[in-house]
Amino acid sequence: MEIRDAGLNPLHGAETARDVSGIFHPESIALIGIPRGLKPGKVFFLGLLDQGYEGPIYLVHPQAGTIDGYPAYRSVLDVPGPVALAIVMSPRDTVRNALEECGIKKVKYVILYTSGFSELGDEEGQKAEERMRGLARSGGFRILGPNCMGIYSPASKMAPFPFMPKTPGEIALLSQSGSIVNLFLKACAEKRLFFRHAVSYGNSCDIDLPELLSTVMAMDEVGLVGCYCEGTDPRRLGAVLKENAGSKPLIMWKVGQTHAGMRAASSHTGSITGSSDLWKSLFRQHGVIEVSNIEEMLDTTMIFSFLEPKGQGRVVIMSGPGGPAVSAADAVIANGLRMAALESSTESRLRTLLPSTGTSIRNPVDVGLGAAFDLNLYFDAIDCIAGDPQVDCIIIVGGGATDDLNEQYVNGLIERQGAGGKHLIAIDFPGFIGNKQVLDPLYENRVPVYPTPERAIRSYARLMAFQRFREARPRPKP
Amino acid sequence: MEIRDAGLNPLHGAETARDVSGIFHPESIALIGIPRGLKPGKVFFLGLLDQGYEGPIYLVHPQAGTIDGYPAYRSVLDVPGPVALAIVMSPRDTVRNALEECGIKKVKYVILYTSGFSELGDEEGQKAEERMRGLARSGGFRILGPNCMGIYSPASKMAPFPFMPKTPGEIALLSQSGSIVNLFLKACAEKRLFFRHAVSYGNSCDIDLPELLSTVMAMDEVGLVGCYCEGTDPRRLGAVLKENAGSKPLIMWKVGQTHAGMRAASSHTGSITGSSDLWKSLFRQHGVIEVSNIEEMLDTTMIFSFLEPKGQGRVVIMSGPGGPAVSAADAVIANGLRMAALESSTESRLRTLLPSTGTSIRNPVDVGLGAAFDLNLYFDAIDCIAGDPQVDCIIIVGGGATDDLNEQYVNGLIERQGAGGKHLIAIDFPGFIGNKQVLDPLYENRVPVYPTPERAIRSYARLMAFQRFREARPRPKP
Repeated sequence: MEIRDAGLNPLHGAETARDVSGIFHPESIALIGIPRGLKPGKVFFLGLLDQGYEGPIYLVHPQAGTIDGYPAYRSVLDVPGPVALAIVMSPRDTVRNALEECGIKKVKYVILYTSGFSELGDEEGQKAEERMRGLARSGGFRILGPNCMGIYSPASKMAPFPFMPKTPGEIALLSQSGSIVNLFLKACAEKRLFFRHAVSYGNSCDIDLPELLSTVMAMDEVGLVGCYCEGTDPRRLGAVLKENAGSKPLIMWKVGQTHAGMRAASSHTGSITGSSDLWKSLFRQHGVIEVSNIEEMLDTTMIFSFLEPKGQGRVVIMSGPGGPAVSAADAVIANGLRMAALESSTESRLRTLLPSTGTSIRNPVDVGLGAAFDLNLYFDAIDCIAGDPQVDCIIIVGGGATDDLNEQYVNGLIERQGAGGKHLIAIDFPGFIGNKQVLDPLYENRVPVYPTPERAIRSYARLMAFQRFREARPRPKP
Repeated sequence: MEIRDAGLNPLHGAETARDVSGIFHPESIALIGIPRGLKPGKVFFLGLLDQGYEGPIYLVHPQAGTIDGYPAYRSVLDVPGPVALAIVMSPRDTVRNALEECGIKKVKYVILYTSGFSELGDEEGQKAEERMRGLARSGGFRILGPNCMGIYSPASKMAPFPFMPKTPGEIALLSQSGSIVNLFLKACAEKRLFFRHAVSYGNSCDIDLPELLSTVMAMDEVGLVGCYCEGTDPRRLGAVLKENAGSKPLIMWKVGQTHAGMRAASSHTGSITGSSDLWKSLFRQHGVIEVSNIEEMLDTTMIFSFLEPKGQGRVVIMSGPGGPAVSAADAVIANGLRMAALESSTESRLRTLLPSTGTSIRNPVDVGLGAAFDLNLYFDAIDCIAGDPQVDCIIIVGGGATDDLNEQYVNGLIERQGAGGKHLIAIDFPGFIGNKQVLDPLYENRVPVYPTPERAIRSYARLMAFQRFREARPRPKP
């Protein structure tokens, strides 16, 4: 098991990462070993049908016949047309034979769903993966997996699960875990965050994270990359990070940072997770944005999707309900940002706009509880602050007293996103506005919404850290 | 402004905290200075009507006449019956007169909503508050506020806002900010967490946090106390904490821990927030559970409301989707808990219960993706682990493949809460089960549900820290 960690993998070794973009738009797909009943492997077929994959789909099952009314072939060799991608879900003992046939059939890519290899932690699993790499090399194809869910790519109408979003976006997700792909994309869809590609790469016996990362980083249609990683070769990954540092935001969720996590990763995808310190310094060096759970991953993905990194991180906290502003000010400082010092002309103007008691014209700006009934107190204050050159970002805790007022409030924020070149971020406390229908337009119009100022501020701090990293680097020559 | 911080407040000084429980069940209420139109002060009247307060409510307005169809009196002195509690929302310049009349009327408690005192940061505000304390002392009444929303107490049918929950619970919340009361109680109600009392105490010129805390800690009907605090006298608070240490869980959200937060607290409630280190050591010494934002406050309140602190903090992570288990194992260790070492008989039994591939019988226990279709894989694994004496808590990431299966899944978890003396905690990733109707029964049946394993584990670690604190203390003599 140390082979991969030491960078001595015979296929990977000193090689640099290769482009594997072909796996995202195969002209035809064979499902080898598709189950007859409603077993987990059936999700691949359901996913392709649900997305409406337009190329030929060939079902392969040793007993052939028909499956769910579709004809099945006994072997991939019996398939009448060429096969660009084979998704193999055959029982473990028959995988070798299936891969040999893929080589003969001149399949280009194999997604290997079958599990029971290096994640079992025995030598046999390791050896089996080495043999599979050999088959791939001699057969001229590449393997994604084993123990993975493969590719989601809505522009190609491919998905490894049914009921996944059909809208392509500009985010790419590379995840060792298939369930993280499923969970994360569903959570993102609720915030109107959509994906160009998502990959579950499992044990990565052949195609690995560095190759996938190098591939998606080079794609014009990808603006932002997220990774969920249990383990990979740090030298190979480091080379790709260096090559691409600062070119696009790269959000990394590296797990297996404790002994218990390492053991869990080992039995999940056979991964050697490596030293936490090593990874942290690698990420810092190359401007990678590190997160530590799915919520941070979601929060961070939202801000990088909606807002352009710019400015100097000078924050105004604005609130109707005053309490949340105090801990928000704490969070601004704790996250290495600055509370904007408003110009005196801005403060004077705010003084004329806001009631004289129950409000504060200094940052944090408290527009008072009356703003829940008179939304112009929010809007006038935003317009005033949007004109202050000392401000980069306005984080606003607020809402109306009724659903109707909340709709007006939301529309007012949307109109003001980007006004005066400022970023606007909305806070909706759990159960405050709450109403999903009311909040949806904010997401549609790229106004980030967080349930607490702390989460907003942590996310904005990451946006600014990336901005600082990019500014500090020499510009690439055009 | 340093007077209060130095413990030299002439009313508070060396005095110990006094019982102020009378403020939670007044026999009659006068609303002094109630506005005619829909202005913020109107919420007090709407709140009492909405809850159905059963004692007499007297409206007091300088022009008398009627307000919203109810008779109004020119002065509290014109009110025909006794007044136990006056809620004063008069303009700042008339507050003094209103308080003098409260003294003459033998009012027992005043909730002073009016703002514009010490939070303005000028000497005049401080002096005005000192004068008010003098009026309270000479008039024989106590003041809550100024700049506060006062009391929510559904058993007494009192609330400072309309649309607040009507169900009394066993939680008490003491919050310097009124909006935090409103926001927090609404978020809690969604999780079926209900309150006995909630107090917004604002600038606390007279009744202060130590008194309120001492009062609610002594109430049999209160099982759990939460505080949102900007500033208070650390010596007075320390005495109350010492007196009550470990008797009930006390969750503390102390803000104003940075310079920016201090300034924000000062302009919000005129508070001197004090040194962060001092507070932290005070809290640690007395078993106070410290949180740092409203989400942690909510997460922590849920676990202490639903689960009895017990056991040794040995956690099993169980998952259908395997990915989340790896970072969950990291979080167990990072939070100072232990991954339970399952007995070999438990592992052997799991081996017979679970499919041989795509699963793991070692902790974290992966029941495999098939469990989304065959829920007995979850249930049998829980039943098996519930019999293992090496386990205190099972944290389960899962769900069914359809809404119907999710309902069965939820019911299965409810049946198993507490089985074998183990705690059961459910994880529902953002957008996974999602369906509020499906999840509600979990809250109703005291199964904590968190959106990520990390948040569940952090909360459970706090439960266990309180348990350890309580166990380490000498038991009080019966």
